[in-house]
Amino acid sequence: MPMCAPDWSRLLSPKAIAILGATDRGDIPSLPQRFLGMHGYAGEIFPVNPRLSEVEGLRCYSSVAALPAVPDIVMVMTAAARVPALLEECGEAGIPFAVVCSSGFAEVGHTAAQEELAAIAARRGIGLIGPNCQGFMDVPGRVFAGFSSAFNDRHWKPGGFSLVSQSGFIFGIAGIAEEQGVGISRAFALGNAAGLGVLDLAEALVEDAQTEVISLFFEALEEPRRLLALGARAAAAGKPVLAWKAGVTPSGARAAAAHTAALATDARLTRALLERAGMIPVASVTEMADRALVLSQGRRPAGRRLTIVTVSGGAGVAMADAADPAGLLVEPLAEATSARLRDVIPSFGSAANPVDVTAALIGKPDMLAAALDLVTEDPLTDMVAVVPTVLQGTAAVSVASAIAAAAASTSKPLVVSWCPRPGTAAQAQEILAAAGVPNFPDPVRCVTALAGVVAGVAAPADPACAPLRPGPARMLAEHAALELLREAGVTVLRSHLAATPGQAAAAARDFGGQVALKVQSPDIPHKSDAGGVALDVAPEDAEAACTRILAAARSAVPGARIEGVLVQPMARGVAEIILGIRNDAAFGPAVLVGLGGVAAEALEDVQLMLAPVSPQEARAMLGRLRGIRLLRGFRGAPVADEAALAEAIVALSTYALRRSDTLESLEINPLLVLPAGEGLVALDALAALRGEPGR
Amino acid sequence: MPMCAPDWSRLLSPKAIAILGATDRGDIPSLPQRFLGMHGYAGEIFPVNPRLSEVEGLRCYSSVAALPAVPDIVMVMTAAARVPALLEECGEAGIPFAVVCSSGFAEVGHTAAQEELAAIAARRGIGLIGPNCQGFMDVPGRVFAGFSSAFNDRHWKPGGFSLVSQSGFIFGIAGIAEEQGVGISRAFALGNAAGLGVLDLAEALVEDAQTEVISLFFEALEEPRRLLALGARAAAAGKPVLAWKAGVTPSGARAAAAHTAALATDARLTRALLERAGMIPVASVTEMADRALVLSQGRRPAGRRLTIVTVSGGAGVAMADAADPAGLLVEPLAEATSARLRDVIPSFGSAANPVDVTAALIGKPDMLAAALDLVTEDPLTDMVAVVPTVLQGTAAVSVASAIAAAAASTSKPLVVSWCPRPGTAAQAQEILAAAGVPNFPDPVRCVTALAGVVAGVAAPADPACAPLRPGPARMLAEHAALELLREAGVTVLRSHLAATPGQAAAAARDFGGQVALKVQSPDIPHKSDAGGVALDVAPEDAEAACTRILAAARSAVPGARIEGVLVQPMARGVAEIILGIRNDAAFGPAVLVGLGGVAAEALEDVQLMLAPVSPQEARAMLGRLRGIRLLRGFRGAPVADEAALAEAIVALSTYALRRSDTLESLEINPLLVLPAGEGLVALDALAALRGEPGR
Repeated sequence: MPMCAPDWSRLLSPKAIAILGATDRGDIPSLPQRFLGMHGYAGEIFPVNPRLSEVEGLRCYSSVAALPAVPDIVMVMTAAARVPALLEECGEAGIPFAVVCSSGFAEVGHTAAQEELAAIAARRGIGLIGPNCQGFMDVPGRVFAGFSSAFNDRHWKPGGFSLVSQSGFIFGIAGIAEEQGVGISRAFALGNAAGLGVLDLAEALVEDAQTEVISLFFEALEEPRRLLALGARAAAAGKPVLAWKAGVTPSGARAAAAHTAALATDARLTRALLERAGMIPVASVTEMADRALVLSQGRRPAGRRLTIVTVSGGAGVAMADAADPAGLLVEPLAEATSARLRDVIPSFGSAANPVDVTAALIGKPDMLAAALDLVTEDPLTDMVAVVPTVLQGTAAVSVASAIAAAAASTSKPLVVSWCPRPGTAAQAQEILAAAGVPNFPDPVRCVTALAGVVAGVAAPADPACAPLRPGPARMLAEHAALELLREAGVTVLRSHLAATPGQAAAAARDFGGQVALKVQSPDIPHKSDAGGVALDVAPEDAEAACTRILAAARSAVPGARIEGVLVQPMARGVAEIILGIRNDAAFGPAVLVGLGGVAAEALEDVQLMLAPVSPQEARAMLGRLRGIRLLRGFRGAPVADEAALAEAIVALSTYALRRSDTLESLEINPLLVLPAGEGLVALDALAALRGEPGR
Repeated sequence: MPMCAPDWSRLLSPKAIAILGATDRGDIPSLPQRFLGMHGYAGEIFPVNPRLSEVEGLRCYSSVAALPAVPDIVMVMTAAARVPALLEECGEAGIPFAVVCSSGFAEVGHTAAQEELAAIAARRGIGLIGPNCQGFMDVPGRVFAGFSSAFNDRHWKPGGFSLVSQSGFIFGIAGIAEEQGVGISRAFALGNAAGLGVLDLAEALVEDAQTEVISLFFEALEEPRRLLALGARAAAAGKPVLAWKAGVTPSGARAAAAHTAALATDARLTRALLERAGMIPVASVTEMADRALVLSQGRRPAGRRLTIVTVSGGAGVAMADAADPAGLLVEPLAEATSARLRDVIPSFGSAANPVDVTAALIGKPDMLAAALDLVTEDPLTDMVAVVPTVLQGTAAVSVASAIAAAAASTSKPLVVSWCPRPGTAAQAQEILAAAGVPNFPDPVRCVTALAGVVAGVAAPADPACAPLRPGPARMLAEHAALELLREAGVTVLRSHLAATPGQAAAAARDFGGQVALKVQSPDIPHKSDAGGVALDVAPEDAEAACTRILAAARSAVPGARIEGVLVQPMARGVAEIILGIRNDAAFGPAVLVGLGGVAAEALEDVQLMLAPVSPQEARAMLGRLRGIRLLRGFRGAPVADEAALAEAIVALSTYALRRSDTLESLEINPLLVLPAGEGLVALDALAALRGEPGR
């Protein structure tokens, strides 16, 4: 990141671009000038090369100092060795941006040379893109400043979709999106990103009037808190952000390590961060392009209810099938809507959802218009997909017109799944394109794409959070960890810390029923394994049991500091939950919730969300647990107090932020959820603190 | 299904086609003749319409009887009311196939009219396609016999991919596949399928020399055993079968019920059936088209090891990321391969996997050829994906030639992921297409498609299995169910059926340690719930405990027939498993395996496979359980005897087939898996028998 914010307008609307190392030999250094000219760049181009007086009909200058005006951008195409001196000259001349395409830096192990570039750029206040980068393109502005093979095409469709990545592969992604119908705004390939990084450009794009949807491809996520702030600003600007983090699986991380030496990031934590930032996580070009296509309509579904209007029963079934796994609902329409639909569509069609208007549509274009009017107005419909399958010819034109009119008269997303043979419905498809109606030939991908952009929660504007203090971690014994929970506002089981077997017996008599006894030691985090736990102990047996578990624990962990024995009444609930805080040094605190028990743990049925977690988000986290049915009356068990659990998640998230400087981790295991209305109770907990006086 | 096998050659290579109800008005009945002519059908066309003497330049006949020769196929385009009489005339004339496009049958509730058609066709030996169908196309044969909008396109690419469905949407699927580069053989839309069904046509396509890959879209799976036989025949013929069953999710099933009144099929059982049949399950047009594209090369990966050769580190990381979730392995190459690669590729590239040949490739076409030679010969490589991203121009041509040469010199699947801008690498893409090298613009979809066609196991040629006898089901008490397990060859815990508390105490003393006591009654399947179980009982307490649980059971289920109390030694293993047989009346017996315990059950971590299950398949089932890590030394637990568990699956599958006529269900819960080498032991079981003398 440069020392102060650059004047982005000079990068985004350059009036003049100089090219250092320009040639007319058709080699890579010759390409930026060729592409700028080919695409009709309207500003001035200054080739710079001391050995040439003219390049491709333009006057060539001998040096940066000799330029007739200060360009907004300089493209650096020379050998690596010459770049530092040239960058100094650019700084001297007051050029605000340099795009260094030259390779021969960190990618071949020359990290010192790269650090020198970064230092010059920082000192000179130059916004540095590169080195080893392919450049950027601005489709509406006709600025193709780089050498990507993709710039050879003259026919990029302009639009509002902007992309940023280190890899030049971003132009391939942009191309695939554009071929599906997405208009492109800008795309940047930052190469080694020694100066400006993906987040810098993303921040600029949030402010860029030409950009409506932002797509980011990350090879590393190094500034998570800045990503959160970016998400909040993008949300405030109404600009959805699609985010793809590469290198999240073991194979991917291995490949990433070989490619960029980026550290592997935990896939779950990465996803939690992107979701917390209000971004839309994607993991393939198709996902990115499909979601960009839905978003190109400028709308997001407000809820999860999809209404399908089809001419093919088979395609309708296939789409409905895809809805459940994608998390969309294909449910009956409002009764009033269905009743009026029955007057409109043939008796052998269906007024349920999917609405089957049948192939009778071909002879009756008005029928579709009437049906779409009803469906878009339906109060139980959040989004509409119209499926004309292979329809073509004259009927196709009237169908397309009806769809375009319906899309214009509703604010709900309205997309189509249409797969006519190439050229057989060209006019119809032009009508849809002109109306900005997204088209997905595959009906299943249509559903998946809609599901992927359902409006989520926005990033919090200020996720106040102090960084974790350095220093060794200090484990807290159960009773001390439970004390933290009381601070956080989570109900903790009544308990008494007994110093002797006699005190334990007295506490058990006080509780008046069977008790659990647990040895307390910061040196024995896994008490059961050490024989330090006795369950279902009658008060009269408590003294003996206490003596026994103390001996077992001392023998299992010789020298352990024993703080006493915790006495608790035995408690039974509907379900056991693991609820915790994990405070990542880079990402900040996240709340983790999952079903308890070794099987659930092995099945990794866990949800993670970066703090703060809102009540709505807490409920959503619980809803995404596969095992949530255990809390909802599974096999005749009582329904558990899910609301109390959601409240505990929120409370823990608030506490995690408040204690983010010292609380490294906290795990309640088990947290016993009681029947609905009765709340929950923490039975056991473990915590680790940092930066406080430890042992 | 027709009474006897039709002479498929007359449908697949028709020399003459009559069109009943032919017109020249441009309406639907006029379309088959227009499409046959437009695509250059080489056989004779006989329009039939008593009111016309000529249609579109062809002589029109007044009736079927007046035709100059017996056509191979008759297309019926008339009003529904006239179809039965016309079908009789066709039968009279000896016409072997009728494609009834006319609607007005079951789809509008006229089931009797449809049954009449089916009866006439059966009686007359006519292969009936339809009614209410869109017809079929044979791209290489230029037979476009129907009225699909998709037939308006003249430029279908011929090839070996054939598709069958009831829905006309199949032509849309074929079109999407073709646009991705798949050559099409035949596609059939069978409409209401009153005569020939999807399986009939599929059987014909297995024998069809022109068809290399078969794709089936099912709205119902009504003849599962026939599907298995089809799978076996397709495997023997070397023809992969892609199968898509619609209506498997709740929303999809609702839509299917509205559309075709097809009954919902359990998604897991459906998948088990398709896999057992050796078919490749798919669930979207994109999956179907992508897999067809890989298969169009005529190869399937023999294993799961993918080697990536890329010019873009970013794209390589994205692909490697996709490999893990798809079940492919991106692992280091053989050391000898890497060593030789290091001599070939630039020092700043990577000789690991992904192999990064870098953009230096552009200047050195021979480098790629040399690298591909090494990679395709690598013993640890099952398939290769080459990723030139947006490469175009002259370099693209030499790269394409190198890839085409490499593909020709290996028998491993070799595909590319290339996304140049349209038209910027046309010649290169033609070279690849001519060489039959599949191309996936999205590198992630490239990986998913490869993973989807890894050679699986073939369908067993004869899944001998007697149908379940009719009659009420009879539950077996535990001791009787355990007896079945002994028959099946599954180890059962030592146990003694005691008739009295005294006998129970004696048995406990014999076992010599703590025992479990369980009340045995066919009327009490859930013993614990009835208080009929006591665990960890010392021999001296056995008599009292036995008396207590008998009383509890009698009070919980008054009148229950008590057969005694089962006495077993207490046993502890590494993990508890549920292993069972579910014998579906239609699908036949399947073996089910999952982690035991209520949490695992709630998480639905279960695998299902139709019997017979081979040892290899049993291991694969276990490998697909998310919770399998509980058997593999989770959190310091001993490694369990997974091999014994796989053997038990195989044994149970064999037993399920042997007893398929009477064994409706069998569930071992829990099956205790002991440490490696020590086997396993069934603790409890439930069974239901059919068709045998019951209560």
